[in-house]
Parts: sequence; C-alpha cells; structure tokens
Amino acid sequence: MSEFPAPRFETPYYAVIFSSLRTPGDDGYGATAQRMEELAASMPGYLGVESARSADGDQPGITVSYWATAEAVAHWRRQAEHLVAQRHGRQRWYSAYRVRVAKVERDYDGPN
Amino acid sequence: MSEFPAPRFETPYYAVIFSSLRTPGDDGYGATAQRMEELAASMPGYLGVESARSADGDQPGITVSYWATAEAVAHWRRQAEHLVAQRHGRQRWYSAYRVRVAKVERDYDGPN
Repeated sequence: MSEFPAPRFETPYYAVIFSSLRTPGDDGYGATAQRMEELAASMPGYLGVESARSADGDQPGITVSYWATAEAVAHWRRQAEHLVAQRHGRQRWYSAYRVRVAKVERDYDGPN
Repeated sequence: MSEFPAPRFETPYYAVIFSSLRTPGDDGYGATAQRMEELAASMPGYLGVESARSADGDQPGITVSYWATAEAVAHWRRQAEHLVAQRHGRQRWYSAYRVRVAKVERDYDGPN
C-alpha cells in the first residue's frame, strides 16, 4: 500500500474514482488487485493511489488513482494487462461498479 | 447509507474526495458522521455520497460527495454545523486527512 492519504500533487491533475461492490470469495481478486497497483505505478503520469474497502455486506470499496494528465488516464485504461483485469472484474469480481474521471482543481490537508 | 455506487450524474459535476485515517475510539464520530451525511443531503446542489472505510490499522477511509457545481461545494464547506464538525475532526477524529475538489468529466458503469 502506498502512502495514505496520498500526498499533495500539483494542480490540475486527474483522479479516477472507482467505486465497487464485490462478489463473494476471492477467485484471484487479491493477487490481481495487487498486480494492478504495481502496474499502475509503473505507468507514465502515475501520481499515486488510495484504497478503502468496508468489510460489511457487499464490501463497498473506493479506489482513487491519481494521474498527471487526461492522456495518462486514457493510456492506463487501454493498457493490455489492465484490459484483461477489467474484463475479469466485469465477469467475476464486481457485482456493480462505477468509474468517474475527474480533474482535481484544489487539494488541501489536515489536521496540521 | 445512500445508493452504492452512487448513480450516474450529468457531467460536468463536482466530487469532493475526503481521504482520512481515524484516531482510535469513537468519541462522537459515528453520530456526527451520520448527521453530516443527512445535512449534506439537504444542501443545495447535493447529488450523492459514497463511503468506504477499511477495518485494519488506522482505518483508511474514503468518502466522496458529489455536487452539481463548485458553488455548491463552497457553500457546503462553509455551512455552520459542518464547520463545527470539521473542527472536531481536526481535533479528535482524524490523525491525517486530505481533501481534493475535482470536476467530474466522464462517468461510466459496469459490469452491465
């Protein structure tokens, strides 16, 4: 796991908000999630990632990855191994998900 | 808890990504978190909210609230009761947090 919360980045940059519900069982999910985190970190324009998943019910989870540009987001979305993981995600791991691509305009921290 | 994932909204709209680590214990946190969710939902321009918090360690959590406009985000940030909750959050509930305000440009779902 990377730094949490992810640090301040120079605005503007991009956030990909991935909100999902999990199907029961692992079925290869954990290993692929870890691999995708490593792979994302090796991509051009990658800035960081944050993840949280509740333990209850359908395990609502939110992963936000941060990218320098919209082009970096598009490049990651089309990366070959990531496309395979996305297909498995649709077929096996998620009962529902939504992806939102957003341009971060302001960024502030606390409680300092 | 509202619908999860939150539904599609008409782009562009705004996301406030709040990533935090919790201090140990509740100390009024749960009741205020629920009250803030209700209060936010009554504010002009509110669209929806998603939350996930992992159970391990410092309990990394991500809450993303969605708003129609940047003005609605600013209005919520300055709401009086919310200002009190923000102060308590800094003083008691969070060991670290970061807030990012982002304009959502694209929004797509799955696995359908």
